[in-house]
Amino acid sequence: MSTTIMTTSADPALVEKLALANRILYDQGIVDGFGHVSVRHDASAGHFLLARNMAPGLVAPEDILTFDLDGNATDARGRRVYLERFIHGEIYRARADVHAIVHSHSPSVIPFAATRTPLRPLYHMSGFLGGGTALFEIRDVAGNTDLLVRDPALGRALAAALGARSTVLMRGHGSTVVGTSLEQVVYRAVYAEMNARLQLQALALGEVTYLNDEEAALAAATNDTQLARVWELWKRRVTLATGA
Amino acid sequence: MSTTIMTTSADPALVEKLALANRILYDQGIVDGFGHVSVRHDASAGHFLLARNMAPGLVAPEDILTFDLDGNATDARGRRVYLERFIHGEIYRARADVHAIVHSHSPSVIPFAATRTPLRPLYHMSGFLGGGTALFEIRDVAGNTDLLVRDPALGRALAAALGARSTVLMRGHGSTVVGTSLEQVVYRAVYAEMNARLQLQALALGEVTYLNDEEAALAAATNDTQLARVWELWKRRVTLATGA
Amino acid sequence: MSTTIMTTSADPALVEKLALANRILYDQGIVDGFGHVSVRHDASAGHFLLARNMAPGLVAPEDILTFDLDGNATDARGRRVYLERFIHGEIYRARADVHAIVHSHSPSVIPFAATRTPLRPLYHMSGFLGGGTALFEIRDVAGNTDLLVRDPALGRALAAALGARSTVLMRGHGSTVVGTSLEQVVYRAVYAEMNARLQLQALALGEVTYLNDEEAALAAATNDTQLARVWELWKRRVTLATGA
Amino acid sequence: MSTTIMTTSADPALVEKLALANRILYDQGIVDGFGHVSVRHDASAGHFLLARNMAPGLVAPEDILTFDLDGNATDARGRRVYLERFIHGEIYRARADVHAIVHSHSPSVIPFAATRTPLRPLYHMSGFLGGGTALFEIRDVAGNTDLLVRDPALGRALAAALGARSTVLMRGHGSTVVGTSLEQVVYRAVYAEMNARLQLQALALGEVTYLNDEEAALAAATNDTQLARVWELWKRRVTLATGA
Repeated sequence: MSTTIMTTSADPALVEKLALANRILYDQGIVDGFGHVSVRHDASAGHFLLARNMAPGLVAPEDILTFDLDGNATDARGRRVYLERFIHGEIYRARADVHAIVHSHSPSVIPFAATRTPLRPLYHMSGFLGGGTALFEIRDVAGNTDLLVRDPALGRALAAALGARSTVLMRGHGSTVVGTSLEQVVYRAVYAEMNARLQLQALALGEVTYLNDEEAALAAATNDTQLARVWELWKRRVTLATGA
Repeated sequence: MSTTIMTTSADPALVEKLALANRILYDQGIVDGFGHVSVRHDASAGHFLLARNMAPGLVAPEDILTFDLDGNATDARGRRVYLERFIHGEIYRARADVHAIVHSHSPSVIPFAATRTPLRPLYHMSGFLGGGTALFEIRDVAGNTDLLVRDPALGRALAAALGARSTVLMRGHGSTVVGTSLEQVVYRAVYAEMNARLQLQALALGEVTYLNDEEAALAAATNDTQLARVWELWKRRVTLATGA
Repeated sequence: MSTTIMTTSADPALVEKLALANRILYDQGIVDGFGHVSVRHDASAGHFLLARNMAPGLVAPEDILTFDLDGNATDARGRRVYLERFIHGEIYRARADVHAIVHSHSPSVIPFAATRTPLRPLYHMSGFLGGGTALFEIRDVAGNTDLLVRDPALGRALAAALGARSTVLMRGHGSTVVGTSLEQVVYRAVYAEMNARLQLQALALGEVTYLNDEEAALAAATNDTQLARVWELWKRRVTLATGA
Repeated sequence: MSTTIMTTSADPALVEKLALANRILYDQGIVDGFGHVSVRHDASAGHFLLARNMAPGLVAPEDILTFDLDGNATDARGRRVYLERFIHGEIYRARADVHAIVHSHSPSVIPFAATRTPLRPLYHMSGFLGGGTALFEIRDVAGNTDLLVRDPALGRALAAALGARSTVLMRGHGSTVVGTSLEQVVYRAVYAEMNARLQLQALALGEVTYLNDEEAALAAATNDTQLARVWELWKRRVTLATGA
């Protein structure tokens, strides 16, 4: 599973930021003991960085491995890797615009995946959900499985279901969110969860007015200019908590 | 965006209290990385105090800027300002009785805004909601936008929608709450959120008996005499947490 | 408001336990900045102990005052008292079996009070709710008010509504729970809140099988033998948190 | 209640792990002041280990007792034992494959028990719920009781209701989950609670597609290979919190 060709080392600041993103996602309740976040390699578009097989809340820079797009680790040195690394490789292959990916079982999203109900943007914070979420039904691709995206073919099918959207719900499993940077993808994962929680409540109250496509696009563009503000807060929380 | 006319310095105790209000609103879950709270300048009714563009949970006294009612900062010295400072300026202009304002995306309120369902007071703690909340539909004023109150005209439209009420829901966005002091507006923001959460639950249970207008007015007047009790508690929480 | 007749000092261990009960109720989310807990005086059935007007989460032994059943403090020495001390005095007068009382706005109970829906025991932990909760509608007694039990007549009306039950819902306000000891009444306040939260969920799921009256009585009797277990846990939490 | 025949001492590492499991279940919100977790004795299939009667969140290795399958403690030395130890003894007798058991009042599961609604797996994390949960209605066995499994006959009836499943709902009471190890049973108790919470939400959204039996079995098998990952996280949390 490891290749013999060495890749250029990733920027240490990017490795550090990816470790931080892992801990932020745990602190924000998006991942628990499971789920993962990756970033495309800064020096090689054909590689990405992802932690070894471990709980995201405990990830440190030395736990970050480099993978090629086929899901082969170049520097595992015997360390276990995530079963679902193919989610990342195949989306990076299909989407040149994507530079960071979060796969999670973020709780409020699960009922939407289980009922095949798209998330739609309830407020400007989730403008990136404009047009609604995609759905991945693994049964249509592979019949009865353990639901995991555990090989390249399943990864390609997931990437195809995602298409050009920001978020794909995975029936019986969870969701995957993509972005142009770690800051953006973490923001999107946090507010996809929040939107799900609030959309469920709104549906119980009455007829929901979602953001229309133009509002969603405009809101998403504006919020992308404000990412540093919330990243700073989230970073402060996890560095205070761990002393790291 | 800055004016050349200097304003008298605000009372340092008020600046300190505004920084505290920011951190209390974060601790109470009313704001996350976004949202803001302002107070009218103690020495100039034509100015107000508001933090620079940053996460409210991290605001310290040195982050507080002074603005005129047109939204121009008098002392920004290059620091970024909030895109939506016009919410504050235009409400202070329209409502001489208002001395403090909270704008937030407080979560339980979002589904009410998205379904255009007024908040109504479920218990005496939210008597200030008597008569129900106002609604601001930005589409009626400006068509498709990024939902933000990003210029004086939108600020004036929001102030007009608010009218004489304490709270205005903003469809697809959040809410704005006004008060006569920081203590009162923080109290109102906290209990608007709580009332929203509980109103949703009550609507699922059966027919709700809300406070009528007289009950609401009487309860609000009584609770205004008890604000110091809860402010002391909230202050203790955030000063213990930060050591500040 | 203070009487000239001194009462025998209460047992310092009881005063300490009452301060602890205040902090436990805050830690468990039953009270926030508002609400109160009292205990009948150990040496005088005609008096009870209650904190001065302050947030329960901050109460220390030196904040505990002694009241007669008319709601007069014997040792206030100028300190503010709770507006609703009459809840306590009049229930102690009407119910010789009651030795401790919690009045709160415990959140999940509010929607039940607002819709006049009785709490009923969903599981053995809330056997004390057997036969359902009483309802106090202050409008029936006093017309439009600020909802507070702010005089002896309202206190008597509340005690009459409570009757022989453990819990009375107060429409538009909150609830009051009674018990034979601080340990028991704190347990009941915590599990009334939990039962409310779970009863709302159960009603959304389907037809609920509540404990019948015999089951409820048997369960309540058994749980009364296990109070020390949970008190020890709750005490440990608040003493660790405050270092007290 | 104690026997005179001494059992071989259990492996100290297993005793330590059982104490840890108690604290993890408390930290994860599965138990509060009540509930318990046991493990089958490593050197005697006819015995099991269980804490003395105390809050699980406070259990240390020295609080662990040894019981025979009839529920007799061999080493209580006057310490109180749990009223419901028969849950454990009778399930270990009936199910040779079971090596660890959690009994709890895990909150989101209570409404399912009260409405006799089976839990069904919503996502791969709860594949162990495949085929749905069993139901124990104590009224059918013993009429009106305090709901507790307080003697061997009730323990046998519970074990019969459980059958070959992983989880049995107990109407008016809680639930019991079984597994082949402490790691597995704690995982199952945590995700039974999570599945309950999410299943309730999904039922409000629309028609739910549960994992079918084959998907559930495959997912459960895969997740059993990942238990160390989450156990490490949970262990870190409670050891950091207590310094133990």
